[in-house]
Amino acid sequence: MAKLNDNYLKLPGSYLFSTVARKVREYQEANPDKKVIKLSIGDVTQPLAPAIIESLHKAVDEMGKAETFRGYAPDLGYEFLRNTIAEKDYKAKGCNVSPDEIFVSDGAKSDSANIQEIFSIDNKIAVGDPVYPVYVDSNVMAGRTGTYDKVKETWSDVIYMPCVAENNFVPEIPKEVPDLIYLCFPNNPTGATIKKAQLQEWVDYANKVGAVIIYDAAYEAYISEADVPHSIYECEGARTCAIELRSFSKNAGFTGVRLGFTVVPKELKVDGVALHGLWARRHGTKYNGAPYIVQRAGEAVYSEAGQAQLKAQVAYYMNNAKYIYNGLKEAGYSVSGGVNAPYVWLRTPGNMTSWEFFDYLLEKANVVGTPGSGFGPSGEHYFRVNAFGSYENTVEAINRIKAL
Amino acid sequence: MAKLNDNYLKLPGSYLFSTVARKVREYQEANPDKKVIKLSIGDVTQPLAPAIIESLHKAVDEMGKAETFRGYAPDLGYEFLRNTIAEKDYKAKGCNVSPDEIFVSDGAKSDSANIQEIFSIDNKIAVGDPVYPVYVDSNVMAGRTGTYDKVKETWSDVIYMPCVAENNFVPEIPKEVPDLIYLCFPNNPTGATIKKAQLQEWVDYANKVGAVIIYDAAYEAYISEADVPHSIYECEGARTCAIELRSFSKNAGFTGVRLGFTVVPKELKVDGVALHGLWARRHGTKYNGAPYIVQRAGEAVYSEAGQAQLKAQVAYYMNNAKYIYNGLKEAGYSVSGGVNAPYVWLRTPGNMTSWEFFDYLLEKANVVGTPGSGFGPSGEHYFRVNAFGSYENTVEAINRIKAL
Repeated sequence: MAKLNDNYLKLPGSYLFSTVARKVREYQEANPDKKVIKLSIGDVTQPLAPAIIESLHKAVDEMGKAETFRGYAPDLGYEFLRNTIAEKDYKAKGCNVSPDEIFVSDGAKSDSANIQEIFSIDNKIAVGDPVYPVYVDSNVMAGRTGTYDKVKETWSDVIYMPCVAENNFVPEIPKEVPDLIYLCFPNNPTGATIKKAQLQEWVDYANKVGAVIIYDAAYEAYISEADVPHSIYECEGARTCAIELRSFSKNAGFTGVRLGFTVVPKELKVDGVALHGLWARRHGTKYNGAPYIVQRAGEAVYSEAGQAQLKAQVAYYMNNAKYIYNGLKEAGYSVSGGVNAPYVWLRTPGNMTSWEFFDYLLEKANVVGTPGSGFGPSGEHYFRVNAFGSYENTVEAINRIKAL
Repeated sequence: MAKLNDNYLKLPGSYLFSTVARKVREYQEANPDKKVIKLSIGDVTQPLAPAIIESLHKAVDEMGKAETFRGYAPDLGYEFLRNTIAEKDYKAKGCNVSPDEIFVSDGAKSDSANIQEIFSIDNKIAVGDPVYPVYVDSNVMAGRTGTYDKVKETWSDVIYMPCVAENNFVPEIPKEVPDLIYLCFPNNPTGATIKKAQLQEWVDYANKVGAVIIYDAAYEAYISEADVPHSIYECEGARTCAIELRSFSKNAGFTGVRLGFTVVPKELKVDGVALHGLWARRHGTKYNGAPYIVQRAGEAVYSEAGQAQLKAQVAYYMNNAKYIYNGLKEAGYSVSGGVNAPYVWLRTPGNMTSWEFFDYLLEKANVVGTPGSGFGPSGEHYFRVNAFGSYENTVEAINRIKAL
């Protein structure tokens, strides 16, 4: 008689963005004449850059001819892409990462959900609070998080590290020693960043206690300030304690194209065993590589034309972020983020809960954002607004909020 | 202190196809003048069909314009693809599968590796022997298979169902009752098929004992005989006991494009809970959808032009299969498969082991196939030859073997 993985049944009912979508749909159905502007789910809106489109067409043509057709990709990804990543994302920035430490994948969401698999169920995880829900949910599914407290909205076996105004939304090293530490900078959802010296403290701590840091750098392309690290490998000692996740979704608009990669340094060992070999085995057994045409598109991201076009694309979104940040500030809101990240994080006014403010904005300004409480208990009374809309919609949305 | 998932350490050293590749590389380095022909790993060689190339170009163009750009795909996959699959693969063939029971993915390899996650670790799996290694390895990684016996090359907690000449390579219902049953027809590696009446017995059995069948139908496009089922849902009662995996890799040459899907019928319940909801939750939490352009390519597979072109492509490979089958038979080998599947399965001559025969063919004929023992102990003394090469190479390879 087959038996369920009943860890799945412990997951609280509905996913944050499903609830947001349902509320918007219901409002729109009841008010068909209203123009609702969504600055909620972190999906990009600008088309793929011309250099990427060109490389996709070229790769498609190759797939149509026997001489240039490509079947199964190499397990870790094509060398042309891994070499480029190692060169441009790491070597050029003074980080020591070799091409065979780079595992090309279909995106950082999959990788951030799958990476926990190579660790024992007995590891205790630490996460920022608020946090990208995938880190926690994937550990719940694996049975690593204990029991759920419906009132507190926390798991008994998870170490929560509050990220609040008092610590500039940067977690402090927790009292209880964790085994796996999830860090995400620039942060989703708060838009906060970590300085290099602060990140170095985490690296030193992880090496000291034998913890592994899972560092999500999906938003590194949005960093504008000098002392904010783009990679955890800028810190000394990170090669013995850290795995880094990267994405093409936000730096190149690949949310619908699907490409990312994970770096597992060969020196990173647990119980004396190199994690590189375990992740390679998982990759080879449970995955079959990103599409050839998509890997070629990834390569084009690093071309001269691609770099120029994407710099403009990032600037477009960051111009939105600036408009949101300044506009909300002018309107009297307490805001953070938006400088090195495409997210602005605001404190709800008058002690409204995150969902009360969601309903208020939807009904009064027809603007949709994301309730901070959906990312964890310390997100309560906060609210995320993203910069991925069109400039026109962003301006209109903020002006409506200012007019309230 | 982080701890490993030490189930990974139980996996026997090297993956079958890695060993094959290493041996070929070493031989080729020592004999640079020899032309080695590979009929080993199941990778296609024919280019993508024109209808698919056309749809890829069109979708790429859409991604380059703001009005038609697509970001994150819907969790289950685009409706245009799921509706088409439900209509053409199921409804048109008398099977009752609705679009919202279809989960679009990046391929059957990932799905066949991931599907075990929604079941408890306490389930006992049954697999054919020989078997596609991913079914077993993914369960080893999850800790579901007990200990490995290096001599027998079997896992203590896996039920092996021998598929040998005596049973026409179709497994018999095992004495010990399994919880999860992996079936793959047309079969990789043996090329064997199952008749509808035989498959009905499995469905009836699974419903009786409360087991779940994971039915891998990746090769259904190669079926040429009338009484061989294309889908397990042709059997009465399959909707309450079976999950079906499908792939675009072999019917449309998508090994480097990556597209597949899994069907989880809503009636399929374990412990009173619908598996559909669990798989949906996994899909939504740990995966972010196949690329938009790839899903459009999948849609083109079902267009009138696509169907005609792919029928010709399948016929091309099956013509190879016929040449292999007849040629080896003429050469005195005992052969099976190759009629409803792109694989020919041969008995090694003179009681040679699979690897002895591998070395013999490589050295004497410069032809590479896959040792049957790599797929499981009952594959010993067997050998797989695939029909995915070019016609010219296939003819040359078989003629060399005939000349031995």
